[in-house]
Amino acid sequence: MTNHEFYMELALKNAQAMKGQTDPNPLVGSVIVNDNRIVGVGAHLKAGEPHAEIHAIRMAGDKAQGGTIYVTLEPCSHHGRTGPCALAIVEAGIKKVIIATLDPNPIVSGRGVKILEEAGIEVVVGICEEASRKMNEVFNKYIVKNTPFVTLKAGITLDGKIATHSSDSKWITSEEARHDVHQLRNEHMAILAGVNTVIADNPELTTRIPNGRNPIRIILDSTLKIPLDRKVITDKSADTWIFTSENFDTEKKSLVESMGISVFPTSGQKHVNPIEVLKTLGEKGISSLLIEGGGTINAAFLENKLIDKAIIYIAPKLIGGQYAPTFLEGSGIDKMADAVELEDTDIIKIGKDFKFVGYPRYKN
Amino acid sequence: MTNHEFYMELALKNAQAMKGQTDPNPLVGSVIVNDNRIVGVGAHLKAGEPHAEIHAIRMAGDKAQGGTIYVTLEPCSHHGRTGPCALAIVEAGIKKVIIATLDPNPIVSGRGVKILEEAGIEVVVGICEEASRKMNEVFNKYIVKNTPFVTLKAGITLDGKIATHSSDSKWITSEEARHDVHQLRNEHMAILAGVNTVIADNPELTTRIPNGRNPIRIILDSTLKIPLDRKVITDKSADTWIFTSENFDTEKKSLVESMGISVFPTSGQKHVNPIEVLKTLGEKGISSLLIEGGGTINAAFLENKLIDKAIIYIAPKLIGGQYAPTFLEGSGIDKMADAVELEDTDIIKIGKDFKFVGYPRYKN
Repeated sequence: MTNHEFYMELALKNAQAMKGQTDPNPLVGSVIVNDNRIVGVGAHLKAGEPHAEIHAIRMAGDKAQGGTIYVTLEPCSHHGRTGPCALAIVEAGIKKVIIATLDPNPIVSGRGVKILEEAGIEVVVGICEEASRKMNEVFNKYIVKNTPFVTLKAGITLDGKIATHSSDSKWITSEEARHDVHQLRNEHMAILAGVNTVIADNPELTTRIPNGRNPIRIILDSTLKIPLDRKVITDKSADTWIFTSENFDTEKKSLVESMGISVFPTSGQKHVNPIEVLKTLGEKGISSLLIEGGGTINAAFLENKLIDKAIIYIAPKLIGGQYAPTFLEGSGIDKMADAVELEDTDIIKIGKDFKFVGYPRYKN
Repeated sequence: MTNHEFYMELALKNAQAMKGQTDPNPLVGSVIVNDNRIVGVGAHLKAGEPHAEIHAIRMAGDKAQGGTIYVTLEPCSHHGRTGPCALAIVEAGIKKVIIATLDPNPIVSGRGVKILEEAGIEVVVGICEEASRKMNEVFNKYIVKNTPFVTLKAGITLDGKIATHSSDSKWITSEEARHDVHQLRNEHMAILAGVNTVIADNPELTTRIPNGRNPIRIILDSTLKIPLDRKVITDKSADTWIFTSENFDTEKKSLVESMGISVFPTSGQKHVNPIEVLKTLGEKGISSLLIEGGGTINAAFLENKLIDKAIIYIAPKLIGGQYAPTFLEGSGIDKMADAVELEDTDIIKIGKDFKFVGYPRYKN
């Protein structure tokens, strides 16, 4: 590990520690080094409060002068509540700036670097770039596309099933893996399921960990057939938004809305249009969506290239069954060569199960 | 790590190095320590040649006297080509014997220890027991049951499929994983596939690595419908044995046999009886079988609790498809609680893929 990586990893650690408290801002950390000593550390704590660089510069005081600043994201160039950080760095007399990643927003990307270089400061970009990018993967997509970063979650048996042929799915994964899912819910602004799951399992779709945050419950229900006694309607610990196709029952819509549930029709004829779902969520400020759907919903999102990340819990169990469902159904692709490959893959053991993480890379 | 484990691991390493050259004997390694120095190492090299302990005692010479011997398997008590090893240990003046596992054969298990203890030698059993047992998992089953140790192999997509809905399966896994499969073939005495695979893909089912050993090809073909131009019939680099149900075409049987292929009818009416397949293979000295079947054959073996080990290569790819096949079909179980759990699980990365290994534990 180089010195650059050592200091940048400290900046990343401080940034990462604030996960969940900076929304809608990204996670950012910073370290200032002078004469081979750390003289300041900082992180962005909360939207509306100073950026990471400002905290680090304040801690360093006089010792920022002539120093090197490490920052996990390109210093901003805009006049926000604390002024452009790039300018603050110039004013602090810092001589060198090490940046993990440029600003993901193409409109402002590179502007911070320009201010620094025009002031005669040496700038290095790309130290621990991948780690910084991944840390803010949700923000990076949302700021550019204005639609949520979509994570598909599934719990499967080793032979690829999400339930037995008789639809029993309790439980595929271990308690430890199910706890991890609640952690995922805690980190997401919205969670999506299909109405058939709501009818069959009557889930609450809430976060069952102490002091957990409940995501908004997104239900896809093309005909608005949801029974009014389901927990996602009666339980008020989280909001529920239902998306329908064109062909919904208008009377039912009024009834559902009268129970405090939002209903959003989409242009799909038989099915809910997944593209419009994401567009609406984005417009309403939802930057992250966790899909816990069945095989048909999952396939609809995958076929539209809308899944950004897949988290699959694999239980070391065999159940068999030609008609047992898998987490990805639909018609499927014809040729293996056209399979959607996942990149940046990782697998770890959780309890008895394995947690797989990967990022689909779509061909055009 | 204790001293005991340190020396036993060296014994295990020497034993493991002989993999493939000791059949039908097990892998065994041995280390002799005297006054905190290693004075002898040994391993069983080849059936008919001295056992591991004898090699180690010969290397130690006088220094075996008063020493401690580590051996990965209980010293034998029978008069074979080199006499009982337990007696040789006594005669060498060794004072302490550390054993990883007792003999798996219940008829002789414990007899070696008895000889040693009756001679006043201190015996410790169970150091690195699991590693030793796993190293000889094939031998341990075969010596007791006289049927082969059965390993199920499959290559699947992350969404659990072994082919697209249109039966395309080239290729699911990476070249590195496919190379690993050829290593598996090299280590097995027989490989099993169904006639439908033979008809559809016309595989050779041979080992494509330099100096590789070809397993005997076992084909399940209930009606003996195999076309005579298939490579498993025309290619003579390995033997092919075909198992049928009761309802085979006798004329076809003569025809197939005239081409040098062995045909074994079983008592199954519609399907080949998998229990009889294993019984016949065991009687013919086949101690290890690799199943590369489709979902129906795999399910038939699993439902009869005949699979000892599962090796599943998981490719990070998504293909979808409600009708795309999985590696375990049949009717499947009804209740998730009745799933066959796998134990001693492990997962490693091979190329882009993940290789899962586990051992089914059947409920009664």
